[in-house]
Formats: sequence, structure tokens, C-alpha cells
Amino acid sequence: MSHSDYLKKFIRDVPDFPHPGILFRDITPLLRDASARRKVVAALATLAPAHLDAVVAVEARGFLFGAPLADMLNVPLVLIRKPGKLPGETRAVNYALEYGNGTLQMQKDDLPTGAQIFLVDDLLATGGTLAAACELLEEANAEIVQIACLIELSELEGRAKLKERTFDALLSY
Amino acid sequence: MSHSDYLKKFIRDVPDFPHPGILFRDITPLLRDASARRKVVAALATLAPAHLDAVVAVEARGFLFGAPLADMLNVPLVLIRKPGKLPGETRAVNYALEYGNGTLQMQKDDLPTGAQIFLVDDLLATGGTLAAACELLEEANAEIVQIACLIELSELEGRAKLKERTFDALLSY
Repeated sequence: MSHSDYLKKFIRDVPDFPHPGILFRDITPLLRDASARRKVVAALATLAPAHLDAVVAVEARGFLFGAPLADMLNVPLVLIRKPGKLPGETRAVNYALEYGNGTLQMQKDDLPTGAQIFLVDDLLATGGTLAAACELLEEANAEIVQIACLIELSELEGRAKLKERTFDALLSY
Repeated sequence: MSHSDYLKKFIRDVPDFPHPGILFRDITPLLRDASARRKVVAALATLAPAHLDAVVAVEARGFLFGAPLADMLNVPLVLIRKPGKLPGETRAVNYALEYGNGTLQMQKDDLPTGAQIFLVDDLLATGGTLAAACELLEEANAEIVQIACLIELSELEGRAKLKERTFDALLSY
């Protein structure tokens, strides 16, 4: 069985969540399997470049993989969060969601100029969130050397929003 | 230097966040230090009982420590989340916040009856969130054998809301 087929056994399809017509890919069965979780983090770690200054994880499910990935790579973990969660001086970016707008924030003192970044989240759908995260990181003069997700919903073409940046997903639907 | 004094060097005090008069304990400097993060997870792991069925982590900062803790202990990771995030059949509990009310949810199929649980979050303040999490877990017929946080704000007396349950914090303010 391929790596991808093995991991897909732990992703549960839930129709009509969170809205009618949406097929939700639920990662909670994977989280309940310690061995599958470890395989995900190990597979993400193989994508890391030789030099890396930080793993940046996007709230909230990105934290689930970003934290152990930063541990495995022995590098700083930096958070991108929803508004009002991070204290101190922050930078923010607004982006369009399916309904309305979202905002992401990071702290201004988080990263040295030119920091080499591995950006991680659980899922790439339309790409709005990760594109906004990239915008934040580039405002901070960071260099995004790798972007990775556990799951890519390829029919939504989110990869196009990430432009020429290096992006990999462990599982594609 | 004691373990606690060492870790406190990585907690930044931010006055008047998120509201005037609140002294916020910011864990992001600790997250940026891989060695300090590992010490936190190792210290949490020493609190684990001999038999454990799952680590349960509370959204969102609880995920940062819950995920690597579940890895270290080689057990399932189960999420307690804000409303509307978890698909499938869920149970929910409402609780009072400083302003208004909050709701926490977990999935109904997450835990077998009698599961031995290690509940983890980043911080104990008034105890409302963790008490609500305990209520959810007990509705699921789980047995909460250990609760732990990185930080306890002891003057807020949140520990009293956890009643006779076993609670430990690595750092106390």
C-alpha cells in the first residue's frame, strides 16, 4: 500500500459539513492514531530544506502538525493567528473568505529579516488562508522556502493562489 | 536554576492585553525556542499515569502542547474545539466567560467508555474552559486521570473549579 493510500484510510469523509454540498475531509481519525500522526510529521520533515529558521503554523489545525514538525526539525515555531490573539506589535492581512472576510495576524518581532520559513497548515482548499499567510510572511521579509499541507483539495485550485512558491501536499483529493 | 525559573525566562509579560488591566502571559518566546518547548513536553509527560487512553487538547493553544505530548506518550490525540469546527455527531457544553458565554464541542465517537484521559491546555486562568472540558469528558463517560497546563494564574483560583481532580501546572504566577 502506498504511503498516501495508508494515510487516506484515516481521513473520514463527512458530507454537507460545514455547509450543504461541502464534502468535509475530517482528520480526527488520523489524530487518534499515533502511528499515522508520526508518519505525517516524518513525511512533512522530509520536505524541509537543509537550512531552516522556523516552522510557521496557521491557527488552529496547523498547530497540530506544526508543533511536532518544529520539534522534529529542532527549529523555532512561529504562529499565524486569527485577530486579537497575539499580544505585542502585530502585522495583519485581510483576505476574502467564501462568506465575508478573514484576518490573519503575526507578531512583528517573530522573525529576523530573510528568515527561511517552512509554512504548514492541515489543508489547502481555495488557498485564501495560505496566500494570506504568505503575504504576512513576505511583509516580514521572510523567505518562504517550503509550504506544505496534509491535504490538498485539488479541484479548488488553491495551488494557483500560491503562485511560484514550493508547495507539497501529502494527500490529494 | 530551577526548571520553573528556566521556563519563566521564555514567558513574556504583556500589560493591558487583551483588555486594560490584564497582564497577559505570552508563550510565543517559548515556542520560538525548540529546547524550551521540548522541556515543557517532557515535563508534561512525566505527569502521565502508567495507563493512558488519550491526550485531549483544548483549542487552540492546547494543540501546541497536546500534539507533541500525545506523540511522546504514543497515544491518541482528541480535540476539544469551539463550535462548528468538528464534523459528525458532537456533544457540546456552554460555560460562562468574562464577557458572555463560550461553547466547547467534542465528537461523540472520540472515546471509548471509561477511557483514561490526560487533559491539556496552555493556561489555567479562571478555570471556566477547563471545567467545561471536564464536563464534556465526563458526559462521554471518560475518566480524567490528569489535567495539566503550562501556566497557572493562581490568584484567579481556577484550580477550585476543577474540584478534586488531579491538576498540575509547570509554572505558577
